[in-house]
Amino acid sequence: MRTIEWREEGTVVTINQLKLPHETEFLELRTCDEVAEAIKTMKIRGAPLLGAAAAYALALTAHYSKAKDKKALIRELEAAAEKLRKTRPTGVNLFWAVDRILDKAHTFNGSARELAAMVVEEAKKIADEDAMANRAIGRHGAQLLEDGDVVLTHCNAGALATVEYGTALGVVRAAVEQGKKISVIATETRPKLQGARLTTYELKRDGIPVMLISDTMVGYVMYRRMVDKVIVGADRIVRDAVINKIGTYQIAVLAKEHGIPFYVAAPKSTFDPTRTSTEVPIEERSPEEVLYVGGERIAPEGVAVFNPAFDITPLKYVTAIICEDGILYKGDFSSLSRTAEKQ
Amino acid sequence: MRTIEWREEGTVVTINQLKLPHETEFLELRTCDEVAEAIKTMKIRGAPLLGAAAAYALALTAHYSKAKDKKALIRELEAAAEKLRKTRPTGVNLFWAVDRILDKAHTFNGSARELAAMVVEEAKKIADEDAMANRAIGRHGAQLLEDGDVVLTHCNAGALATVEYGTALGVVRAAVEQGKKISVIATETRPKLQGARLTTYELKRDGIPVMLISDTMVGYVMYRRMVDKVIVGADRIVRDAVINKIGTYQIAVLAKEHGIPFYVAAPKSTFDPTRTSTEVPIEERSPEEVLYVGGERIAPEGVAVFNPAFDITPLKYVTAIICEDGILYKGDFSSLSRTAEKQ
Repeated sequence: MRTIEWREEGTVVTINQLKLPHETEFLELRTCDEVAEAIKTMKIRGAPLLGAAAAYALALTAHYSKAKDKKALIRELEAAAEKLRKTRPTGVNLFWAVDRILDKAHTFNGSARELAAMVVEEAKKIADEDAMANRAIGRHGAQLLEDGDVVLTHCNAGALATVEYGTALGVVRAAVEQGKKISVIATETRPKLQGARLTTYELKRDGIPVMLISDTMVGYVMYRRMVDKVIVGADRIVRDAVINKIGTYQIAVLAKEHGIPFYVAAPKSTFDPTRTSTEVPIEERSPEEVLYVGGERIAPEGVAVFNPAFDITPLKYVTAIICEDGILYKGDFSSLSRTAEKQ
Repeated sequence: MRTIEWREEGTVVTINQLKLPHETEFLELRTCDEVAEAIKTMKIRGAPLLGAAAAYALALTAHYSKAKDKKALIRELEAAAEKLRKTRPTGVNLFWAVDRILDKAHTFNGSARELAAMVVEEAKKIADEDAMANRAIGRHGAQLLEDGDVVLTHCNAGALATVEYGTALGVVRAAVEQGKKISVIATETRPKLQGARLTTYELKRDGIPVMLISDTMVGYVMYRRMVDKVIVGADRIVRDAVINKIGTYQIAVLAKEHGIPFYVAAPKSTFDPTRTSTEVPIEERSPEEVLYVGGERIAPEGVAVFNPAFDITPLKYVTAIICEDGILYKGDFSSLSRTAEKQ
């Protein structure tokens, strides 16, 4: 199934990712507030999925609106958009999806009812496009993988981070579908452990061999030549850098030091060529995420904690970006802006 | 107090490091087997401390021996040594301490009773020397720190890893005693979390400011220029590399990439100039250490895990080694062998 689905009676169904891998709990969300809360608490996570989730949150607002005219509905959509924009600041797909729907709403001619229907359709389109983009990313990226390759990935850029199939893991899946034998090394990805909890779960379910390591072991597995390629996702690709889950940057530096290609797989909805990395807020989350693993406290009371959720990987460490249009190599990065502006 | 102490009635008292920081439980050990078991399970850990613990384990063997002659006691000591050597293969201090005592025993002239007394005294001397070496390391290393420096350290190379004072943290302590304002960034150090559990605990107790980060955040804190120096300990320093807690190597690579000095603080009992890194077994520990944090399982059933406990940092990444004799800079590393052989 897809990670997120719209039901015509006005329900968004998605998996509670905090409960994985031990429990598969489906959330049935009916308001924008419920979606926003699920995003904040990371029950829903993964940049492309956040785009679809935000779009569906606006669809819920539209679907249940009692607004009598278009203007009133647009005001409601704008209020909902404002709530969504305040959930998580770093990934761009959420902002992109919200803006895309609002832009369409502003230029829409028709009744409130027709506008509501348009918003629902546009949200479904955003989700469908993400699923298709992932397939295309997989198709393009699979060319980069050879039979027998071991791919190191960080965090979860899989089906669970997207509407379906995945970005980084989509590339792995596509290569496996082509008959290549690929295995994956998954970093556990502290503090939220998306690699341990989600990436291993997805790959095991698909029968793709996966080995879990602690984040401290990346350098050593590269030193031992156990890694052929690195593929990660992205939360925002700006003019000068890839912004992704904390820990990505150091993996990129290590890949460069060992001559290992470092690929970023992301749909164009992740591109933000109007900004540079200094203009993007890096979300800092609660110290408790570092201090606790489940119910287990790992440090003494009163210890100061730094908990940035993302980091910044300058493009010089990136071998290529794999998007739905194809593979952008170093020389092509300058076309990032044009590619994205064309959208 | 010291991390490990000999009581004249024939007891070794030490802290159960698995229970820290939540509980301070003292272990009272009376047999070599009890010490060996505490080492295997990491109730006792830290390369220099393992040297002292192994020496005290032989002291317990000697103290309680009913051997009638010197030869019989030596056989008992050799059997005890064999058990100790099988506990943990990578750190060298344990082997060094065991060999030092056995060498002395082999050339000893006297009765079994006199030999037993000698073994106990030699073990106490090894512990005392470690405490003194740490003070000297602190004194030498403190010159390298400037007022206001932020020091990043990995794992725990503090008082808890040694007989007292610490190696990497000994340098920090000595600088603070000189009136310098030093603060520390501690990596949590998965999988066993010695940074989160032990380093923060020690530093808080001493009133030295410490900030905890996940292992994924090392690159980002360097990128943000939040780190002035890195200081770590070592489990074995061979001709071509420093072997230390898993995660050390990648921190060294990152330090080099950011132009941050990378210092290793270790007593000469850690030096093994007769070997190169390929000749040292890198201990792999149980997958459960990665799969569980306390009682909390972090990955699905049936996932493969790689859990090396140490990694290898080639000397080209090391700015200087701080030992009790002084500071060895890159150019002086060739003297490692001579320094160590003189011991």
